[in-house]
Amino acid sequence: MNLCDLAPSYVSAIAPYQPGKPISELAREMGMAEEHIVKLASNENPMGASPRVLAAIENALMDIARYPDGNGYDLKSALAAKYGVAQDQIVLGNGSNDVLEFAARAFMSPGTSAVYSQHAFAVYPLVTQAVGAKGIEVPAKDFGHDPQAMLAAIAQDTRVIFIANPNNPTGTILSSNALASFLEQVPSSVLVVLDEAYYEFLPENLKPDSVNWLSKFPNLVVMRTFSKAYGLAGLRIGFAMAHPDVAAMLNRVRQPFNVNSLAQVAALAALQDVPFLEQCIEVNRKGMEQVTQAFNRLEISFIPSFGNFVSFRIGNAMGMYQSLLKQGVIVRPVANYGMPEYLRVSIGLEAENTRFLQALEAGMQEQI
Amino acid sequence: MNLCDLAPSYVSAIAPYQPGKPISELAREMGMAEEHIVKLASNENPMGASPRVLAAIENALMDIARYPDGNGYDLKSALAAKYGVAQDQIVLGNGSNDVLEFAARAFMSPGTSAVYSQHAFAVYPLVTQAVGAKGIEVPAKDFGHDPQAMLAAIAQDTRVIFIANPNNPTGTILSSNALASFLEQVPSSVLVVLDEAYYEFLPENLKPDSVNWLSKFPNLVVMRTFSKAYGLAGLRIGFAMAHPDVAAMLNRVRQPFNVNSLAQVAALAALQDVPFLEQCIEVNRKGMEQVTQAFNRLEISFIPSFGNFVSFRIGNAMGMYQSLLKQGVIVRPVANYGMPEYLRVSIGLEAENTRFLQALEAGMQEQI
Repeated sequence: MNLCDLAPSYVSAIAPYQPGKPISELAREMGMAEEHIVKLASNENPMGASPRVLAAIENALMDIARYPDGNGYDLKSALAAKYGVAQDQIVLGNGSNDVLEFAARAFMSPGTSAVYSQHAFAVYPLVTQAVGAKGIEVPAKDFGHDPQAMLAAIAQDTRVIFIANPNNPTGTILSSNALASFLEQVPSSVLVVLDEAYYEFLPENLKPDSVNWLSKFPNLVVMRTFSKAYGLAGLRIGFAMAHPDVAAMLNRVRQPFNVNSLAQVAALAALQDVPFLEQCIEVNRKGMEQVTQAFNRLEISFIPSFGNFVSFRIGNAMGMYQSLLKQGVIVRPVANYGMPEYLRVSIGLEAENTRFLQALEAGMQEQI
Repeated sequence: MNLCDLAPSYVSAIAPYQPGKPISELAREMGMAEEHIVKLASNENPMGASPRVLAAIENALMDIARYPDGNGYDLKSALAAKYGVAQDQIVLGNGSNDVLEFAARAFMSPGTSAVYSQHAFAVYPLVTQAVGAKGIEVPAKDFGHDPQAMLAAIAQDTRVIFIANPNNPTGTILSSNALASFLEQVPSSVLVVLDEAYYEFLPENLKPDSVNWLSKFPNLVVMRTFSKAYGLAGLRIGFAMAHPDVAAMLNRVRQPFNVNSLAQVAALAALQDVPFLEQCIEVNRKGMEQVTQAFNRLEISFIPSFGNFVSFRIGNAMGMYQSLLKQGVIVRPVANYGMPEYLRVSIGLEAENTRFLQALEAGMQEQI
């Protein structure tokens, strides 16, 4: 009997996550110089990280032979102060992917289920599958979450609901009122994971009061990340805020040293550089204008987005993806999100957006 | 019905890992200056990381807003060349703790079991418990693994055997012959995780030929880490080598970006600085001599160790632990390893070992 045949069947059935193509990989494959490649494939911050972050890392380099603080004391203190929660309500993750996995592993098992939306972040079905639970995918409405349909989909064995707001890869949002009303109606025995990875990009008047809702809804988990607006994707750090009892459950399946020490000092420094964050958000706002105005001019339909990316309809998406790659521009196919006619482009610096738009126009000429 | 009551009972029953006390925590609790504290509690490298590692990290800082290479191409290429394995035999982890978890999650589930030794690394029972599998702890022999008893303990539902060689916290080893004979006798349907976190500290003539065994035993996983001899504990990076089919199963439960980008470049640079590694091993050898000679002089019995740490018998271990803390020296209680009369001390630099030994003598005077 082969060893791998004895592994749980739900593990064997996992289809791995498809990441954006790294610059180094395209450079190897096409024999291109890395500096000529524009990557707009992974919703990264084109401004990089704050100079204060880089300084904080340099300062911490002498300590990298020490294990990280497994409790993340300094960072949790800063997060607790910023968000008005207690330290025992915070769970740090090796990226928010890690915290998504904690939710699955702490609350689900074979014989339970999770509810999430069509076109929602690919990691929700992945973490559900990996613990042998059943995924219930609810059809989207205009590419966004349909809260009424999601409520109706909750089964007896449902333990977790995943909501991405804004959602990736569609960029859609639920209004604050719609979310609050949804939370009122979810049974208190079902965990609601509200994944706000792109929260910082929302205009102030559209930011839901999600952290304040924690005191009202003990079944709510609010997730944030330092990978997007804060520009720390390479370091891997995200976090969750929840009721202390829920946080304690999530921490039970957390590896003791899951967040490396440079990520902890970097996140702390990033929180302190508010002007840099605001600059990044402004660059994204202008870049989004630049890209969507060009889409309009080129008569390309797109899904209006509240994130740092936009998905657009191009018909032969894989053909266009390949054409862009040949021109040194990496975007993201989203066929695995049930959107085979779309590509997703991250908003870059002005010059990167221009490179993308020129390559897109050239690709359209080719395809005619 | 409370949400947390609905979580799997094996998750609620997890008793979290007890890490070594961080320097910053002791400084806070005792109002001590951090620079006066000596931490010999977590088997860290007292030499720090190689200067080549620090330079490589500085070079990579500009890219931290990019996601890491999820496939770890450059590092895997270097590891494959060094160890004579194919890239698809390598699995990178966020520390080797991550890879231990993959083994549990990919091969176990409720209704299966894992076999490990008494006094073996605390993470084996933890990862087993976290997937709802049963842990079978086999009594140790002279504080080390008892291979015959472990073979006899294999049950119908056993999927994984964990072996730490050298073992932490006892520092004991199995000979190469004993290990080879053990592998011959384990059913091929049971995964053997050979955790060699402290491999680099072994004298050449005692290093098992474990990587070469991979071609003979498709159920073998060899694990190594950069946290110990390579001095990268803070960055979190370890890896496994296995048959490509086993590696593929482990990769299925791996998060797409589990290893941060600075850890990848640091590990690559660490591999290239062989003289630094050799120096660290020599410092450890001399420090072990210094500490064990003092133990002999003080008539303290200890378990002869092949790692960068040694466990010694002190009777009132918690009393001595507290006495050492008050003197600014952090060691590790091992009561949770079933060794309530012992403490474990990591080998430090000569001056750190001296501080520890002086504090130990002072503590012994107190306790008389």
